[in-house]
Amino acid sequence: MNNDIILNEGERLDDLQLDGLQIIQHKDKFCFGIDAVLLSDFVQVGKNVKLLDLCTGGGILPILLSAKIQASHIDAIELQEDIADMAKRGVSYNKLDKLIDIYRGDLREAQLYFKPSSYDAITVNPPYMNYNHGLKNTDLPKAIARHEIYCSLEDVLKQGHDLLKPGGHFFMVHRPFRLAEILSAMVNFKLEPKRLRLVYPYVDKEPNMVLIEGVKHGRSRIKVEAPLIVYEGNNIYTKEILKIYGKQED
Amino acid sequence: MNNDIILNEGERLDDLQLDGLQIIQHKDKFCFGIDAVLLSDFVQVGKNVKLLDLCTGGGILPILLSAKIQASHIDAIELQEDIADMAKRGVSYNKLDKLIDIYRGDLREAQLYFKPSSYDAITVNPPYMNYNHGLKNTDLPKAIARHEIYCSLEDVLKQGHDLLKPGGHFFMVHRPFRLAEILSAMVNFKLEPKRLRLVYPYVDKEPNMVLIEGVKHGRSRIKVEAPLIVYEGNNIYTKEILKIYGKQED
Repeated sequence: MNNDIILNEGERLDDLQLDGLQIIQHKDKFCFGIDAVLLSDFVQVGKNVKLLDLCTGGGILPILLSAKIQASHIDAIELQEDIADMAKRGVSYNKLDKLIDIYRGDLREAQLYFKPSSYDAITVNPPYMNYNHGLKNTDLPKAIARHEIYCSLEDVLKQGHDLLKPGGHFFMVHRPFRLAEILSAMVNFKLEPKRLRLVYPYVDKEPNMVLIEGVKHGRSRIKVEAPLIVYEGNNIYTKEILKIYGKQED
Repeated sequence: MNNDIILNEGERLDDLQLDGLQIIQHKDKFCFGIDAVLLSDFVQVGKNVKLLDLCTGGGILPILLSAKIQASHIDAIELQEDIADMAKRGVSYNKLDKLIDIYRGDLREAQLYFKPSSYDAITVNPPYMNYNHGLKNTDLPKAIARHEIYCSLEDVLKQGHDLLKPGGHFFMVHRPFRLAEILSAMVNFKLEPKRLRLVYPYVDKEPNMVLIEGVKHGRSRIKVEAPLIVYEGNNIYTKEILKIYGKQED
């Protein structure tokens, strides 16, 4: 690893517990959550795929996917300049510069950076919240990452459709309270929902995440998978979650 | 109970294990399944509601709901003449003639029987299968109940929309493989999906049923509920299922 990497003030290097990979994060901006880890595990693609990650933040998806799939190349785009810069340095620290390119830009102008109908797969962990009223400071990095200020669900789906090859795969993690809107919009944008998994914190609780795969121009038929349960008891991960985090069972 | 009820050849009287209610069924036509029981339990309405059950079959939903909710009146419609007749006799046997009216008719012509925008709630356990090719005899009663021969998802949603009052509640049980199509079509028919529950046979298996509530002209936001798990072990019902079937826990 490149130990000459420069960490800016407030940044730290976190171990991803996967093939020695590390990521640069900043506590006041946005740190990745279990959402990104579960999405990286939900991605199912063949070999030598060309993949694009939208709303990449500190590059968590491209860095995790570098070890989880066999991509020929991974592009990623992030709106916020300092966060995109953090992602670039994280990629370099992991010596992944040949595999991963981070772009600083607005995904609503993705055609400036990426060729239409050119990706085999797209991943996205977008802002979840569509109710922006009451937000005091819409310039805060965390607000931009969480709320649809510069990037709506429709923006993400439109770019997903335009940039994927026909038959290409679209992978997203989102919140269940928007499920009807998401599936309906995916149908409208011709990213037919083909696979869905709900993530329940406990077996008797409401889900707090949903993982969705769409296929561009796919036929209408969806496979809803077994529930993904996160905890067995108080803060005890289930075997499946431990496996996803790369930890062996007892 | 009225013991003079006439059972036709091949019919039997089944105990619903709920307030002494019974239902007439015919093994070669269609017998209700756990789907109808779970749907009846999923229905949440206030008092004195006027309810309509579409595709009522032998009247299982109206008969179960007579004990589970406090309806002012329940109407129900069934296409097949002999099955509608069975439902009528079942209603009489349970002395529910004042509460429940069974109509023999085609729901695509519901305006002949029911007043538009007049119901507080609608329930439906529709035919699930939309691939009718390969069906040898499309006149068989079971084929009509299971396949979209005389009644498609869109027919059901159109009537649901037209017959419900604004703000009225639409309750449906269906198969998860059609979830994207269902939610998308409900949005299009202005029966906004507001509540959804997936039914998993086992905690580590794919769901085989989905329970959905829509609200006519509702705002876009859905509550996905905790998973409903049917079995704990080999053919051992979970506590929740036993409770729904009215059986006490050990």
